[in-house]
Amino acid sequence: MKALVYHGPGRHSWEDVDKPGLRMPDDAIVRIDTVTICGTDLHILKGDVADVTPERVLGHEAVGTVEQVGSGVRDIAVGDRVLVSCISPCGRCRYCRAASYGQCRNGGGWILGHLVDGTQAEYVRAPFADNSLHVLPDGVTDEAALLLADILPTAYEVGVLNGRVLPGDTVAIVGAGPIGLATIMTARLFSPSRIIVVDAAQQRLDAAKQLGADVTVLAADDPRSVVAELTGGLGVDVAIEAVGIAETFELCADLVRPGGHLANIGVHGKPATLHLETLWIKNITITTGLVDAHSTPTLLKMLASGQLDTSRLVTHRFGIGEMLEAYDVFAQASDTGALKVALFRT
Amino acid sequence: MKALVYHGPGRHSWEDVDKPGLRMPDDAIVRIDTVTICGTDLHILKGDVADVTPERVLGHEAVGTVEQVGSGVRDIAVGDRVLVSCISPCGRCRYCRAASYGQCRNGGGWILGHLVDGTQAEYVRAPFADNSLHVLPDGVTDEAALLLADILPTAYEVGVLNGRVLPGDTVAIVGAGPIGLATIMTARLFSPSRIIVVDAAQQRLDAAKQLGADVTVLAADDPRSVVAELTGGLGVDVAIEAVGIAETFELCADLVRPGGHLANIGVHGKPATLHLETLWIKNITITTGLVDAHSTPTLLKMLASGQLDTSRLVTHRFGIGEMLEAYDVFAQASDTGALKVALFRT
Amino acid sequence: MKALVYHGPGRHSWEDVDKPGLRMPDDAIVRIDTVTICGTDLHILKGDVADVTPERVLGHEAVGTVEQVGSGVRDIAVGDRVLVSCISPCGRCRYCRAASYGQCRNGGGWILGHLVDGTQAEYVRAPFADNSLHVLPDGVTDEAALLLADILPTAYEVGVLNGRVLPGDTVAIVGAGPIGLATIMTARLFSPSRIIVVDAAQQRLDAAKQLGADVTVLAADDPRSVVAELTGGLGVDVAIEAVGIAETFELCADLVRPGGHLANIGVHGKPATLHLETLWIKNITITTGLVDAHSTPTLLKMLASGQLDTSRLVTHRFGIGEMLEAYDVFAQASDTGALKVALFRT
Amino acid sequence: MKALVYHGPGRHSWEDVDKPGLRMPDDAIVRIDTVTICGTDLHILKGDVADVTPERVLGHEAVGTVEQVGSGVRDIAVGDRVLVSCISPCGRCRYCRAASYGQCRNGGGWILGHLVDGTQAEYVRAPFADNSLHVLPDGVTDEAALLLADILPTAYEVGVLNGRVLPGDTVAIVGAGPIGLATIMTARLFSPSRIIVVDAAQQRLDAAKQLGADVTVLAADDPRSVVAELTGGLGVDVAIEAVGIAETFELCADLVRPGGHLANIGVHGKPATLHLETLWIKNITITTGLVDAHSTPTLLKMLASGQLDTSRLVTHRFGIGEMLEAYDVFAQASDTGALKVALFRT
Repeated sequence: MKALVYHGPGRHSWEDVDKPGLRMPDDAIVRIDTVTICGTDLHILKGDVADVTPERVLGHEAVGTVEQVGSGVRDIAVGDRVLVSCISPCGRCRYCRAASYGQCRNGGGWILGHLVDGTQAEYVRAPFADNSLHVLPDGVTDEAALLLADILPTAYEVGVLNGRVLPGDTVAIVGAGPIGLATIMTARLFSPSRIIVVDAAQQRLDAAKQLGADVTVLAADDPRSVVAELTGGLGVDVAIEAVGIAETFELCADLVRPGGHLANIGVHGKPATLHLETLWIKNITITTGLVDAHSTPTLLKMLASGQLDTSRLVTHRFGIGEMLEAYDVFAQASDTGALKVALFRT
Repeated sequence: MKALVYHGPGRHSWEDVDKPGLRMPDDAIVRIDTVTICGTDLHILKGDVADVTPERVLGHEAVGTVEQVGSGVRDIAVGDRVLVSCISPCGRCRYCRAASYGQCRNGGGWILGHLVDGTQAEYVRAPFADNSLHVLPDGVTDEAALLLADILPTAYEVGVLNGRVLPGDTVAIVGAGPIGLATIMTARLFSPSRIIVVDAAQQRLDAAKQLGADVTVLAADDPRSVVAELTGGLGVDVAIEAVGIAETFELCADLVRPGGHLANIGVHGKPATLHLETLWIKNITITTGLVDAHSTPTLLKMLASGQLDTSRLVTHRFGIGEMLEAYDVFAQASDTGALKVALFRT
Repeated sequence: MKALVYHGPGRHSWEDVDKPGLRMPDDAIVRIDTVTICGTDLHILKGDVADVTPERVLGHEAVGTVEQVGSGVRDIAVGDRVLVSCISPCGRCRYCRAASYGQCRNGGGWILGHLVDGTQAEYVRAPFADNSLHVLPDGVTDEAALLLADILPTAYEVGVLNGRVLPGDTVAIVGAGPIGLATIMTARLFSPSRIIVVDAAQQRLDAAKQLGADVTVLAADDPRSVVAELTGGLGVDVAIEAVGIAETFELCADLVRPGGHLANIGVHGKPATLHLETLWIKNITITTGLVDAHSTPTLLKMLASGQLDTSRLVTHRFGIGEMLEAYDVFAQASDTGALKVALFRT
Repeated sequence: MKALVYHGPGRHSWEDVDKPGLRMPDDAIVRIDTVTICGTDLHILKGDVADVTPERVLGHEAVGTVEQVGSGVRDIAVGDRVLVSCISPCGRCRYCRAASYGQCRNGGGWILGHLVDGTQAEYVRAPFADNSLHVLPDGVTDEAALLLADILPTAYEVGVLNGRVLPGDTVAIVGAGPIGLATIMTARLFSPSRIIVVDAAQQRLDAAKQLGADVTVLAADDPRSVVAELTGGLGVDVAIEAVGIAETFELCADLVRPGGHLANIGVHGKPATLHLETLWIKNITITTGLVDAHSTPTLLKMLASGQLDTSRLVTHRFGIGEMLEAYDVFAQASDTGALKVALFRT
């Protein structure tokens, strides 16, 4: 079969590899029907994620059809149309028992396209299939569901739930890329009074507006002052970091009111400065996190009931064989305007 | 009357000042029976707390007897033996209504010895008396109650409750000064399985042991390795910072396990480095905070019932007229072994 | 001035009484601009609420203009347009400090039209004015705000927050009177996937539909079966009782799924049967409660921002002098279709 | 092998049955080293638990040694000394993913000695072995661990955690049988200020005193008055029902203060009366529940660290062949003074 293979920093190709087979009793083999690319994949290609070794097939988001299941798989059957979650939990360790699936200590967690071969291929082996695959309800399209493999639960759990957004709140979201936009969508489930979105690109702020931002601010237009003015000098109830650099994290720490919450979603490569000399007295709560995907069943239900509309997040569509071109379009987002790309089986 | 007056950085004296009178209907005048000195007072003397202006009477912890009450005071009566809390909440603003008294927006919060004259004097004017004074139960001594003016509720709320200590947890407390020791005492109320205390001074670690630390580690003896060994490489459930410098905060961030809590109690003068490049994926929660003193009634009840024993925290006792000497002893803690000092009306 | 005076079971009149004056330093005198009638008032008229003694002026909901304030009032000023909340908290007792204002132990709580003279009059004395009056934001009409005196916070706090409604939930609301309808409105703030409303009257179910119910069921049409079918036999995540009789409470207990929440809002006059022989094993949580009105500032903010639209809840409008006629219309709701009535100063 | 077999109401025997074998890939076969009898087993013998069919081997609590594991078992190995929990969770269903293991929808939950053959035998087949067996730490005796199969986690989760016991609380525990006593032990982990225990038997109150009850009251000595006096008329913060009859549940509802919690642990066979006419206004929370056993690893840790001492709960010891005699002693607890009995492999 064909797959996107990482060959070390700066080198990757769409090439023939062996089709995966079952290895453990709780594995399933899934034929990929649609797949996407994550910002994290770009980091991997640059060599930023040391755990990813050469010859690894990348990708941790997909929708597909189950082709084979191991002897220990109970709830997933051949022929099921499934969401392949970015998180594959063992379901038995201390962390999994507390629904902290992303922190699985038994060889699970985020492993696809990271520690084992991933979904940017014609087939994938899905470990811990009962826990990592979700059968799709009727009426949910593959493309709509694809967004629930990673960015919707990440935005919802790591941003909105960790940030404890509540009705009436003022929420600042810093970063209006795919994750930031998904954060707007899922924050609205808790009816905040005002969502303020900050980004460096006007184009992304326009998308934010369409998805429900109440106020948008260019990063260059002094968001600290804008927020101060909008909140009577107090700051926002919840600030959500959706970029992954020190500057935006530090902006969030400046924007949050005493007693407020700062939820970090961004994947960071460098440290930030924490201004404890002002923050120690402000009773703030800072959270970080990899997604656990415990909310995926709930999000699927809301997708099926029409409460969530993920369609605006996919801007470009390809055949799966156009993987390299799709990578280019996604990597050049500032030029192409790409949010999420979707590649379909042909 | 006599009072400890701040005259600007490096200058203070025990001198005659006017006895305070009622200014607002909810004020009370309290005769000081016992008073103590806080590490924060030493910072003020150095000029580190810009809000404290010259001619300010310092001190925000005391036990005394009510001598006079304003017309709007309802629950406190002349003659009552009361704890003077470090926090004076208005009781009506958005923050006070959420029991975030330390963040009061109506002229309350931490004001004594900060924005208004404090308790290191023969008398103090206590604003918002119904909310800032607590009538002492019978059987609680003045000296025992004195510790509930600041350090016990600070340790309990900002350390133990914010850190969400639970039965069976492994807790690391970095810093074994008075606040760190009070954190040991109040953490034990939640029956953690193991309390590990880190400090630079063996003398303080000995005190920690006596108050219930299970393991003590000199800061020089590689606490990271000790914790790793004790926790199978995982880290502690809760790390509590009780010093107030970047180094100890960063140590706490290294000690906490994925999914754990880092509660900062320390008063910081400089920023710390937050290693988001490793922490982003660890699902940790960091909290900061000034005490709200919402737990003071509960702590008083536990003091009365014998569940808390604050007696070991007071190492030196003085007459109130020996204020300057008491300051010296407290400031030279590494030589004198002072934890908390208590000064009594003579 | 004129007022609605209770003269014992079955006897009340709109008559001349003395205009109230200040009694305590924290009182305010408010001129009533608009006022409404509560189901509880009908109970009082029948003699069901023993604490209400003859000669009491009824009413605990109003919007008005502050005419006079006591010397201890700090945040409310003469001329302010204010919401008079049904809850008047002392703000200092154990319960008020925990924001359980409805359980105030210091002479506050629900006192208006109950233990002291109420709002169905031309003027009212508002005790604990700083805590019981809320200055109205610009752009909020008197009539819209009137609904926030009692039913909106009651529905939100005692129904939605106690019931812990979450995104994606299936919620059953039993009773589609004013409180049930307000529960629909405020439950939607948490984006449940499905709201099922049960009532005995089709007319009220129609109103429920308009306010956002997804499914409506006549009480006679076997709601147990309908819910079983809609939830795959599991039951609802949250069942909210908004009537106040044993039968509807017991229905809620049957509808809730294992692990679900049953939030009782109704005012009950008689006991219900709790089927512990089936419920003991179901891990359910049952809550009861008088409103605390801690959410009133948040609800006012959402009213101002257009997130809440209370206009559909007022079906009949009168001059304040038409008080007796308004009572009749409200008491005959099944004939008149009345939800809430509003009476305006003329 | 020998086993205790239920033959319908009133008929049971200790007889030869086939030794169990593996049926599913996630089964394990455990040799029973020590086993106990639960009050629920007595209910089953009377025919009160309709789901238990004739020829069922009873028992849902044991400690044993793993003799065989299925191909899908990953974390449990032959030779492991294990606790056999009363709850066998599938680990994958909606409820198990929320750690509500007792409500498992996939054929798990409380099944041993209920829906499948149980532990009162020389061997047991343990379904879902990775989730239902817990490897014992060194230094924990079989007998001490045996109490963690059911009563300790039940008391802790359904009583103490559901009741939200907090430091400083006043807690009433109604019923001082094994579960009530285990509730005293585990409630103390949260440092309540006062535990009041009510029972009809002085002998059990004596045991309660030894395990940490602060006040004991005979049911005949008007516990309502005693609690009213001890709490200034307010009631207790938490009332825990540990009997399982209407009368004791209703007593708990009378004892709890406004805003307090009533946690039902008892297994009820008949309904109770819920006095909503007084409770509707009291803001109380009532919880029910079957144990989930999610706390078992934590309790094991505390047993190993010496924080829990279960030794006082076992009053009688037998060889496993003396099963019928042990049943008699346990069933005649009021005469024999039996709390828990332990039977050992011989």
